[in-house]
Amino acid sequence: MSSASQVPFKGYAVTNPKAWSDFDVIDFKPKNFKDTDVEIAITHCGVCGSDVHTITSGWGDIEPPLIVGHEIVGKATKVGSAVNGIKVGDRVGVGAQIGSCLECEACHTDNEQYCPKGIDTYNAEYPDGVKTMGGYSTAIRAHERFVFPIPDAMESKHAASMLCAGLTVYSPLVRDGCGPGKKVGIVGIGGLGHYAIMFAKALGAEVYAFTHSDSKTQDIKKMGADHVIVTDKDGEFAKPLAQKLHLIVSTRDVADDMPLVDYISMLWVQGHMIQVGLPDKPFPPIPGFAFTTNGSLFGGSKIGSKKEALAMLKLAAEKGVKPWIEELPMSKAGEAVERLKKNDVRYRFVLTQDLM
Amino acid sequence: MSSASQVPFKGYAVTNPKAWSDFDVIDFKPKNFKDTDVEIAITHCGVCGSDVHTITSGWGDIEPPLIVGHEIVGKATKVGSAVNGIKVGDRVGVGAQIGSCLECEACHTDNEQYCPKGIDTYNAEYPDGVKTMGGYSTAIRAHERFVFPIPDAMESKHAASMLCAGLTVYSPLVRDGCGPGKKVGIVGIGGLGHYAIMFAKALGAEVYAFTHSDSKTQDIKKMGADHVIVTDKDGEFAKPLAQKLHLIVSTRDVADDMPLVDYISMLWVQGHMIQVGLPDKPFPPIPGFAFTTNGSLFGGSKIGSKKEALAMLKLAAEKGVKPWIEELPMSKAGEAVERLKKNDVRYRFVLTQDLM
Repeated sequence: MSSASQVPFKGYAVTNPKAWSDFDVIDFKPKNFKDTDVEIAITHCGVCGSDVHTITSGWGDIEPPLIVGHEIVGKATKVGSAVNGIKVGDRVGVGAQIGSCLECEACHTDNEQYCPKGIDTYNAEYPDGVKTMGGYSTAIRAHERFVFPIPDAMESKHAASMLCAGLTVYSPLVRDGCGPGKKVGIVGIGGLGHYAIMFAKALGAEVYAFTHSDSKTQDIKKMGADHVIVTDKDGEFAKPLAQKLHLIVSTRDVADDMPLVDYISMLWVQGHMIQVGLPDKPFPPIPGFAFTTNGSLFGGSKIGSKKEALAMLKLAAEKGVKPWIEELPMSKAGEAVERLKKNDVRYRFVLTQDLM
Repeated sequence: MSSASQVPFKGYAVTNPKAWSDFDVIDFKPKNFKDTDVEIAITHCGVCGSDVHTITSGWGDIEPPLIVGHEIVGKATKVGSAVNGIKVGDRVGVGAQIGSCLECEACHTDNEQYCPKGIDTYNAEYPDGVKTMGGYSTAIRAHERFVFPIPDAMESKHAASMLCAGLTVYSPLVRDGCGPGKKVGIVGIGGLGHYAIMFAKALGAEVYAFTHSDSKTQDIKKMGADHVIVTDKDGEFAKPLAQKLHLIVSTRDVADDMPLVDYISMLWVQGHMIQVGLPDKPFPPIPGFAFTTNGSLFGGSKIGSKKEALAMLKLAAEKGVKPWIEELPMSKAGEAVERLKKNDVRYRFVLTQDLM
């Protein structure tokens, strides 16, 4: 196998951080191909809140040109000789992580998302010094550990956003005990939240969805939530649910006015509130007494492992979990990120390839 | 059995919240005796940080006169007809909780410390409307659920502070997986922290003790810690320990300048940091990214259940766990709380009865 590309490498890049929704088509250099790598011709890429946080410099300065996008589905165009279980032509996906050391305890225990040497799919660097570029593009190369075969029963447009948004909520759901007999709260019903409702239901839990306006109530019921609670800033919504929820997954990614103590008060003894949205600002200060009513915990989670990604895709295929998406051609990435920034999407944009 | 007292009920009370270390001897009315109650003539009472937070109004205004103290050991002087396993003359103790509904899910699952109707040992009210008064006093009455027999092998002066300080760290240690093969961090080596070191060792863990000055280093080694780490405000101390600890129990009860993100960074994947100290002020704001390196959680815990108290006392008796204490006569309670407020104690005051 030669190391030559089977596909062009070009994509829609932010070239001026101040004009964060203006994308210019650029050519870029892929990582050097290794025998453990898969090269993928991209057909679909979801538009994640992370893309917006990154290009608006909410999570820190960026160095242009930068191609974002980490909810990638496409076809394998080249497969390294050491890769198992993937062949040229297979439909495969890549999520928000594109590398790790593969040698540490995290990597050895199906926790590679927590490898200290983890590499983000964009705005990072491969070990060979090449800058990682995301999926608003024609193609990507990744180590097989970060390449997920897509089940035949699932359409590519549905699989794409599952690989970050879906996995980011699936992982804490399964790690924190979501299942039959459990009452699970989902806070913030956007791209991640709508997946969280559907996966929590698919895993057998009773689902309480929390939304700050009732404009989504009908949608939320259709997604399968058993209860829809419209929140208020005074925390009145939480009182009838004191100590009732075994787990809360919060996808809210704005920290201002977040009624964190009220959410925590709804947890059962030793319950977990897992915050997967990553606001630009820190969470409101938590008083010590917030945790003494129930011995609860507040924490986070980062995407998911390959093992979890494969289990999620299997569950989604079996149970028919499908995201609510709006498709746009990749050239309309600017429109997608602008509308996502305003929360004007129900519930996930998926960009379709139009550069080749 | 008559409902008359077998002992006088008087104690050292704060009568003016502005003069919080001036204690006046007062008579007080005990709760009405029920057939599920035990009446106790107090011989010893530990001096807890909670006493200081309460009498200084750090946790909110108080209504004098108030007798604090919730690390109580004494002899049963009267035992209700429905009480099992305790007889007049037995050595027994009472901790920080003196009541609960005994009917809710928390009470039925050995989580009575999280009963929404839990009653604090002082500064609260019994269901009969009588104000709860603590152990800087001659006697107390309590429902048997909140009365713990003291093992014969243990001296009363050692048992007293175990019933709040000890239990408050023992409960999260056992609930959060402390045991052989686990690396456990203990933050803040005062009354609670010194118990946490000893119990974590007794439970078989490798113990990392974190202290802000090295003046206690020799003591901490004698308590059994395997590693002593002197912390700094820049968080440099945490870097060599990134992802190394399975559990952190923090007893620190001052929130200012707390390097919370640095502590969290030391946790292994899905590790827990349990904060049992309750500062007057909220914790520093936590950025979302604090949890993404390890999927960790930060939370709290409240004292412990009776089941845990009995297991702790058994473990302490078997392993010879003994607190480092300084005894003072109860009339010197003012000196004790003033010195505790200045952290001038190694490592717990125990007041001995001098009112009868």
